[in-house]
Amino acid sequence: MSKKPKAVILISGGLDSATTLAIAQEQGYECYALSMDYGQRHRVELKAAHWVAESFSVTEHKIINVGLDALGGSSLTDKSITVPDTLEEGIPSTYVPARNTIFLSIALGWAEVIGANDLFIGVTAVDYSGYPDCREEFITAFENVANLGTKAGVEGGSFHVHTPLVKWSKAEIIRQGVRLGVDYGLTVSCYQADNEGRACGVCDSCRFRVQGFQEAGVVDPTRYRK
Amino acid sequence: MSKKPKAVILISGGLDSATTLAIAQEQGYECYALSMDYGQRHRVELKAAHWVAESFSVTEHKIINVGLDALGGSSLTDKSITVPDTLEEGIPSTYVPARNTIFLSIALGWAEVIGANDLFIGVTAVDYSGYPDCREEFITAFENVANLGTKAGVEGGSFHVHTPLVKWSKAEIIRQGVRLGVDYGLTVSCYQADNEGRACGVCDSCRFRVQGFQEAGVVDPTRYRK
Repeated sequence: MSKKPKAVILISGGLDSATTLAIAQEQGYECYALSMDYGQRHRVELKAAHWVAESFSVTEHKIINVGLDALGGSSLTDKSITVPDTLEEGIPSTYVPARNTIFLSIALGWAEVIGANDLFIGVTAVDYSGYPDCREEFITAFENVANLGTKAGVEGGSFHVHTPLVKWSKAEIIRQGVRLGVDYGLTVSCYQADNEGRACGVCDSCRFRVQGFQEAGVVDPTRYRK
Repeated sequence: MSKKPKAVILISGGLDSATTLAIAQEQGYECYALSMDYGQRHRVELKAAHWVAESFSVTEHKIINVGLDALGGSSLTDKSITVPDTLEEGIPSTYVPARNTIFLSIALGWAEVIGANDLFIGVTAVDYSGYPDCREEFITAFENVANLGTKAGVEGGSFHVHTPLVKWSKAEIIRQGVRLGVDYGLTVSCYQADNEGRACGVCDSCRFRVQGFQEAGVVDPTRYRK
């Protein structure tokens, strides 16, 4: 039996979370990868999540259904709202209400079941879209909830939410990932990727990614559809 | 258009949450009822939730899928674990890891979409099963997460999680509910109710309920299957 500590790593199929998984593995954790099927329009990212999980030989990869599309309110889950192709002022329409709170909560539930105290999430507060649930103060507040709201917490366990990317630029994330052997050709960041995972090249998420590869001086392995 | 403030009320179909909905309505909120289809073995409670929501003419009742049964770890979602028919020491097997954190997170997402600042949850820390995510300190910690992790919070909104039952005994809850016209015959509290919503009479949840009606001096309208 493995003596490594277990960790639950949220992986979307994108560049950031793939790098986060690589870091968790480098830090010596036995990795349990978790993805969400939440009605996202770029559902092909779940295929990418599977490829990424497989490439790192995780112990288990679970995909949990959570019907956030029934709530609406975001261009990522509501097909009547268009994904913008220019950077928006303030918090953009791709923000999914309470998404990271929901995802971390489900990760917490799984962590409790498997006896893990460590969660990893690839949030970053540098080259990002200004989502409030990517900030460090939010993560700290969530750790407090985790410790108060679980049996494991009450019985003396202490949950830690790791955010290894939070202070890194996109270029730095890519440099670290390349060092750790992440195959970014497997990942899909685009909000409106097609069914083969080919990217649009114009949404917020694509822009940050393109720029990151340029700044890192790394050849961009992303497949674009035009 | 209604000028009432909007609130999201988590309703399971059970006695406590039905009473909570009645209280939210009495307090003048426009009520949006939210239930979860999370793989619970007592799935008939969702029928009860529908009956309860209808009896209070809520503005909308949503049932959101969240596949917690894929995580396991609880006798409520894992059919290989038996629901106990005696009170257990400590936190019982019916505890679902991180359940209220997950449900409140999804309620928060909906609240943000509809422009509500108020969430209601029928937790109680008196006649209860010792679940950690029913305690006031957990709720306070969650409010902090809500305000830090949402666009609405960042833009100056302030979320409040109401727990009107938290200090009440089951008998007090029933007395208040009767005063507010709750039809407890519609509600299902049993963890292993049959498909018609008839209760077992022996699980934790049934015991607290039976005793509550006795102490309140109210005729128990629960349908039992034996």
